[in-house]
Formats: sequence, C-alpha cells, structure tokens
Amino acid sequence: MKVRNRAASPELPAGVKKMTDSQEEVEGAMTPLQLYERLNAQGEQVRCLKTAKAEKAEIDVAVQLLLKLKTDYKHLTGQDYKAGCPPPENVVNQDNGAATDGIDEEDNVDPWNVSTSNAKGVDYDKLIVRFGSSKIETELVDRIEKVTGQKPHRFLRRGIFFSHRDMHQVLDAYEKNKSFYLYTGRGPSSEAMHVGHLIPFIFTKWLQDVFDIPLVIQLTDDEKYLWKDLAIEECHRFAVENAKDIIACGFDVNKTFIFSDFDYMGSSPEFYRNVVKIQKHVTYNQVKGIFGFKDSDCIGKISFPAIQAAPSFSNSFPQIFGGRKDVQCLIPCAIDQDPYFRMTRDVAPRIGYPKPALLHSSFFPALQGAQTKMSASDANSSIFLTDTPKQIKNKINKHAFSGGKDTIEEHRKFGGNPDVDVSFMYLTFFLDDDEQLEKIKQDYSSGALLTGELKKILIETLQPMIAQHQERRKQVTEETVKQFMTPRPLNFKL
Amino acid sequence: MKVRNRAASPELPAGVKKMTDSQEEVEGAMTPLQLYERLNAQGEQVRCLKTAKAEKAEIDVAVQLLLKLKTDYKHLTGQDYKAGCPPPENVVNQDNGAATDGIDEEDNVDPWNVSTSNAKGVDYDKLIVRFGSSKIETELVDRIEKVTGQKPHRFLRRGIFFSHRDMHQVLDAYEKNKSFYLYTGRGPSSEAMHVGHLIPFIFTKWLQDVFDIPLVIQLTDDEKYLWKDLAIEECHRFAVENAKDIIACGFDVNKTFIFSDFDYMGSSPEFYRNVVKIQKHVTYNQVKGIFGFKDSDCIGKISFPAIQAAPSFSNSFPQIFGGRKDVQCLIPCAIDQDPYFRMTRDVAPRIGYPKPALLHSSFFPALQGAQTKMSASDANSSIFLTDTPKQIKNKINKHAFSGGKDTIEEHRKFGGNPDVDVSFMYLTFFLDDDEQLEKIKQDYSSGALLTGELKKILIETLQPMIAQHQERRKQVTEETVKQFMTPRPLNFKL
Repeated sequence: MKVRNRAASPELPAGVKKMTDSQEEVEGAMTPLQLYERLNAQGEQVRCLKTAKAEKAEIDVAVQLLLKLKTDYKHLTGQDYKAGCPPPENVVNQDNGAATDGIDEEDNVDPWNVSTSNAKGVDYDKLIVRFGSSKIETELVDRIEKVTGQKPHRFLRRGIFFSHRDMHQVLDAYEKNKSFYLYTGRGPSSEAMHVGHLIPFIFTKWLQDVFDIPLVIQLTDDEKYLWKDLAIEECHRFAVENAKDIIACGFDVNKTFIFSDFDYMGSSPEFYRNVVKIQKHVTYNQVKGIFGFKDSDCIGKISFPAIQAAPSFSNSFPQIFGGRKDVQCLIPCAIDQDPYFRMTRDVAPRIGYPKPALLHSSFFPALQGAQTKMSASDANSSIFLTDTPKQIKNKINKHAFSGGKDTIEEHRKFGGNPDVDVSFMYLTFFLDDDEQLEKIKQDYSSGALLTGELKKILIETLQPMIAQHQERRKQVTEETVKQFMTPRPLNFKL
Repeated sequence: MKVRNRAASPELPAGVKKMTDSQEEVEGAMTPLQLYERLNAQGEQVRCLKTAKAEKAEIDVAVQLLLKLKTDYKHLTGQDYKAGCPPPENVVNQDNGAATDGIDEEDNVDPWNVSTSNAKGVDYDKLIVRFGSSKIETELVDRIEKVTGQKPHRFLRRGIFFSHRDMHQVLDAYEKNKSFYLYTGRGPSSEAMHVGHLIPFIFTKWLQDVFDIPLVIQLTDDEKYLWKDLAIEECHRFAVENAKDIIACGFDVNKTFIFSDFDYMGSSPEFYRNVVKIQKHVTYNQVKGIFGFKDSDCIGKISFPAIQAAPSFSNSFPQIFGGRKDVQCLIPCAIDQDPYFRMTRDVAPRIGYPKPALLHSSFFPALQGAQTKMSASDANSSIFLTDTPKQIKNKINKHAFSGGKDTIEEHRKFGGNPDVDVSFMYLTFFLDDDEQLEKIKQDYSSGALLTGELKKILIETLQPMIAQHQERRKQVTEETVKQFMTPRPLNFKL
C-alpha cells in the first residue's frame, strides 16, 4: 500500500484513488462480513472513547461513523446490524444499487487511499465534519499573524492548510511564553521526491522560522519495509537520500533533528519506552477500526501506528527536551495522516502526556488532474525534484490538465476554468504574489489569458525554484546529513 | 496473565493451572464463538505452514490440532464447523457434558496456562506428540556425554529436560567444529525468585561450561509491562534485580551477555531490524492461532512474540558475532515457551536464518503438589531464594505435599508414593547423587523411610544450596551487573 506520505504529494493528488501495493487490499465496496467486522471495531472504538472520557467532539464523530456504517449495513444486507450476529455468507441485499452509490459518493481519505469523483478534488469541508477537526478560519490566520508578527504563509492565506486541532490552545500558551515543538515526517518509499512532497516541509520551515522552535522529522523506513516489497537496507538508503532533499528546504541544523526509525529506535531507550507505552494502550480492535487492518496483516503493520505516534511526545527526545514530557507538539501534515494522530490524541491523556495539535494540508494534484489515478512509476504524472528545466517545460506543456476551452476563439469568448486547471492549482501552491495570482485567475477566467500563457507562467515559476533546490541539495554533504541525523541537544528556549 | 517464565518455576508447577492477571482472560472452556475464532486462526495457520513449505511434522501437528478443534466444535455446538459461518449466539449443545470433559482431559500448556488433572503432573509424552518435538532418548543423552566428555547433568539423566528440537543437528555440527550459542531468558515479573526459576539457569550454566560457548539471556521487562499492571520503571528494576540472582548461578562474564529489552532495543539498531523483519513475516492470524490473542488485546501483546524470537538469530548481537547471521542458536527453556519458538522456527527460513534448536524442561511443582493452584502472593507455595534456613524448614515441614500414608504403621506396612510426593520431586531436581536418590526412592516406597525423614533430607539439601546462592548473590555488585549487561564482545571461538 501507499503509506504515510505526510506531504500532499503527487502520490496523493486531490481526488485520486491511490494505488495499493498489496494485492490483498480490498478495493471498492466491502463484503457484508467485512462491513460487519468494521462495525464491531467501530463499536469498540466508541466504547473505548467513552471509557477514556474522550472529548465530546471526538465521541460524536465516532458515533456518527458508527451510525453511518449501520445504515450501510442495512442497505447492503437488508438486515439490521446486531453485535455477535455476523451476516450469513452471500447475503447481499439485491436492491442495494442506490445505497452502494450512496457510499461511493463520499470521498475516501485514509493514510493509504484518497479518492473522489469530483474534478475539483476532495470536499474538504465535509472531511472536517467527518474527521471532527476544525476549519482554519480567517480569524485563526489573523491570529497567527498577530502572534508571530509575520505575514502568514501563502499556504495559510490560500487555505492549502485548511484544518486544525487545538491550534488556538497552542497560541494561547505561546502568548504566555510557553513554547512548543514541531513534528513532521515522510515515508521514504523511493529515492525520487516530487514537488508535492515538499509542501509540508516548506510550511514547516516557515513555522520553525516564525515561531523559532525545535523540529523533529521522522523518516519511517521501518514502515516502508513493512508495507512494501523492499529490503531494510533500501528503505534506510531512501531515508538518507530523502533527508538530503528535506535539508535542502533550508532547515536550521541547530533546531532540527531528522531521524530514521531503524536508526533511532536502536539508539534511544526512551523512544522505545514510549512506543511500548502507546502499544499497551491501543487494542487491535481500535487499529482495525481506525486503519482497516485485517487479520491476515502482519503484526508489524498492526503495531506500527505506535511508532508514528511516539514522536508526538517530547520525552521521546531526551537529548532535546531533557526528559520533559509536557512540551506541546504541533504536527503539520497532509489530512490523510490524521487517523494516526486521532489515535495518538486518544492515547495521550491515558498515558499522562499532552495531546499533539495539528495543522492539516489539502492534497497536491497530479499533473493529469484532480481525479486521475497516479502511478509512482509514471515520470510524467508529476514534477520531480531532479527534473531539468526542459523536462519541467515539456511535462507541463504536454501533461498539465487544462481548464481552457478547445479553441482560442471559444477561450477568448467564454474564458477558462481555473478551479480544474492543474497549472493554476500549482501556481496557488508556488507563486507567492497574491495580486499576481488573483490577476492570473481573473485573466484566465475572462479569457484574456490563454492556457499556453498560463503554463508559461507556471514553467517560469517552477524552473528557477527546482534549479535552486537542486543547487541547495548539491551543497548537502554526507557530513551535513550526519549532523542533522545525530541525536543531540538543539538550540532553543522553551 | 502469567507470562514467559522460561524457568519451570513454582509459578508453573506440574499440573497447576496458572493464574491470569487479566480479568478478561477466559478461564476454562471456550464459548462457541471463541472456539469458532480459534478454528479460523488454526485453519489460517495450516494454510500458512503449507504455503511456507514448512516441515511435514510441523504441518501434521497443526492439522491434528485443527481436526481436534473441529471435533470439539461439533460437540459444543451440535453443528459442523464451516468457515465464514460463525455460530449463532447462545448455541450450545445441551448434550455435551461428556464432550466437555473430553476436552478437559487433555493437559493445557501454553506460555500463560499450564493445567492438568493428573496428580503426577502433565503427561509429557502426549505433549511431545502434540507439539511435534522429539523426546530426549537415552541415546541423545549418551551422545552429549560422548561429545562433551562430561557426565550428563542430572536434569538430563533424570528426564527433567525431556524434549528437544534439532539437538542432533547441533551436535553433528559441533563435532565438525561448528559451534553454537545459547539463549535463554526470564520475564521479570517481580523481585522475588523461587528455586524453580533457577532450573533453566542451572542447566544453561552447565551447557555453557561443557560446550564452552557464548550465552545471551533476555529479560523481557517490556513484556511484563504489557501484560501486567506495572510501571515501566518497576519492570526494569525487577530485570536488574533478577539479573543478580541469575549472575549468582555462576555464569562466566566473559561469555555471557544479559539484557533488558527496554535497554537493548534502544541500544542496538540490529536487534530492532530483526524484530521488524520477524514482524513482517508473521500475521495476526498466526499469533492468534499460536497464542490465542483476542481482538481486544493491545497491539503491544500482539507484536511482542517477535521480540522474544529475535535473540534466536545471531546477527541480533553484532557486538558478539560480528554481523554473522549463521551461528546456530540453542534454547534451553521450559516446554510452555515452545509456542514462541515454533513461531520462530517457522519464520527463520523465510528470512534467511537458521532455525534455533531447543531443549525443553518439564515443570517445577508447587510445594502443595502437582495439581494445586499457585499464587505468587502466597509465600508458602514455594521456596524463595531469600528464605532463611528456618523458613525453608518450616515451609517444607508444613506445606510440602506428602506421598506418605496417614499413620506410621500404615506407612511402614504399605510404603509411600514418591511419584506424587513433592519432597521427593524436589530432590530429583536438586540432589545430584543418583545412588542416594535411588535408595531414598526405594526406602520411601518400601516404608523404611518416613515422610519426616524424607523432608529432613530435602531440608538439608536446600538449606546449604540457598545459603550459598545468597552468599554468591551478595557478592554481585552493581558494577558486576553493569558488566554483564553492557553490549560488548565475548570471549570465544566459533
């Protein structure tokens, strides 16, 4: 399966159903028995949340999902769900065409699957309701500006980071001189990174700069080994190679610790202690409900969520926080990673730790559009960080899905549609000038700007950006990587 | 639950159903749904073994158990088992009294439960057939004598270590100058250790001496944390305290590495890599089948078996074996630990490692007899390593179950029964002189030796043994413990 790409990458484009590596993975609708088991797990999840006296909002969301699953079950089997009474084999409601369509209409977003039928991409407002997070309103963006004294990053101004958990609480504490730390990560599934992979890192670097706080970056090479047909050594090599691209984003070596799980687990008894602590407080029923694990999954997958959760707690890094367990963590990540951190937030109070806060980004679209299926092996589906200026130009001109009309005459007359135009979408990610972007939008909508001209602007934005990235990456020596990846104290005041 | 006591300890007496810590744990017979789930898991296990082209003997044992479970299911529910068709709620065959008794007649032996209805203890011959291991025949004992040039340890001479896997293969290689290493362990669930806990360590020390080979000893403090209501710090402290008693058995510091999981996982990237490698190759279905885990168990328990498996592979200890992954491992342990190592042997060839060989011991009986229920909190159920000579005397005189007759007259006339007499059983463990032991047996059977006299012999055997142990333990300094528990090269030739 595709996993844990915390960047809203081309592997996770808006509205694209991701590929799964495992052939066992069930694509599409569930069988009655699968749905029954999912219901059992969700029921258990609700009970656990109630027992753990979780936040009302969290319980509500879990109950909502439970009710929805019950409705689906009734539609699918023609029977009411009853705990302890699994459906007989092959019992499928013959009259359930409409119901199944009803299920499919909803966007599908979890760490391994993102799918939608909407050309504009996933409906993020609906996702906020389903996940029980909060929308990043203008008020919050204004507050970040006020607290930091800096113009908000374009990802905030434009709603690319659109959802959060507890961000107001983080700012409340920060205003009272109680600082926090940042945690983000990447699953190193290959050497090649796309521009989309940079989104969380670009934003995290900005957060590090404006708040002046420490940052930990987890490279889950263990997870990639568990999910993919790769050797441990390959996954670890990808982690180190990816670290170079991450470092090239400009992180401050005095405030940043990057680690591979294979390395850090074996060099930090404190990290392992937190992993086991989390693993003691999460049941198989819970991870089954949250991540959809099956009994035929390996025990490594089943216990892995604890490893992605552990960096959310400051005493996992005694070299940085001197054993303090109460330093608040803020996690910028793509929204598909939220299930890991819902689980983490559920566990936190039960093991005496603060819940991590979150900032969620939307997905980065594939060149072919917000609904097309991506292939990691298809070099034309994205702009790679190793692409030459010529490759960038050709890919955009040939493959970037256009919202323009079929002929110049029609385009001039009716105008283009920036909402489905991938070149325009990419500009919202990478062109920093708001006025220029707004003018491009208007000109494209009015027909004054042609698709070729729009693509030219994107090409001229990306070419120098990628060239500069390549230049910075070249300067990242093995020695620099080693520095970033060595457990050590960081330079900051909490 | 009581867990992973590799020693045949008073917590694991012959024929004693162990206590479970978890109240969720089902004691006694299974419900139809539990049996149904167990059957599913066992079916999956058989499929996995066949897919993995496991040894015929291993598959046969798994199939045998599957068939037995199917018979039990038919008895219990009155219906044939059918995959995908769970039993309706509350369906229990009303006419199954005899059948349930039939189930109970079989001894129950797994890492958390040991029970029998036989006063002589578990039927070990049956266990060998069920587990698919091999009996330690006189021929093997003779061969060990020939290869080592040493008189076999009394545990071998008397069948206390009674079962093995691949021991002939280990000796074949040893005769060709291909050496091996020893691995044993203990779950540090409390500070107090009983004489029974020493069995595997006494035997392992003998093996280390006669074969002149390295030894690793795992203290699974992580497992105790996962299974018991204890803090991480407590479990770790118990590990260090238990290490002192283990060291007092006389191990050679130049050839022995003792480690706590909480410490070693966080100081050896290679150990963690092997753990993840094992976790990738074992499914939840498999551990469910082998260990009886339930969906409500925490994910830490579910993934733990990989941590007990990892020391079976020599490259988990690069500081000792210099990265070699082909050094054969021999594990002396109580038979209830075999499920862990059946799993390990199943995984080994699939990840390119040799299967560990095993030597299995029988269980050490409680003072109250081979069937009584033990309580860890009952100081009178066993001889502790901290007991004074007076406590030893009182416990044996008051509590050791006697095979003698009710009156001296009867005893003189009919003789006692050494097979159920706990004092005599203890002497088979601790009195080294074969002739003396045989004479005691005959005299007790004939009635020449009274129960009080037999107890006196045991008291006089244990008092100096325990006193000497206490003396040696006193000499174990914190510095010595640190030496044993520091990852470092060992002194040996492979």
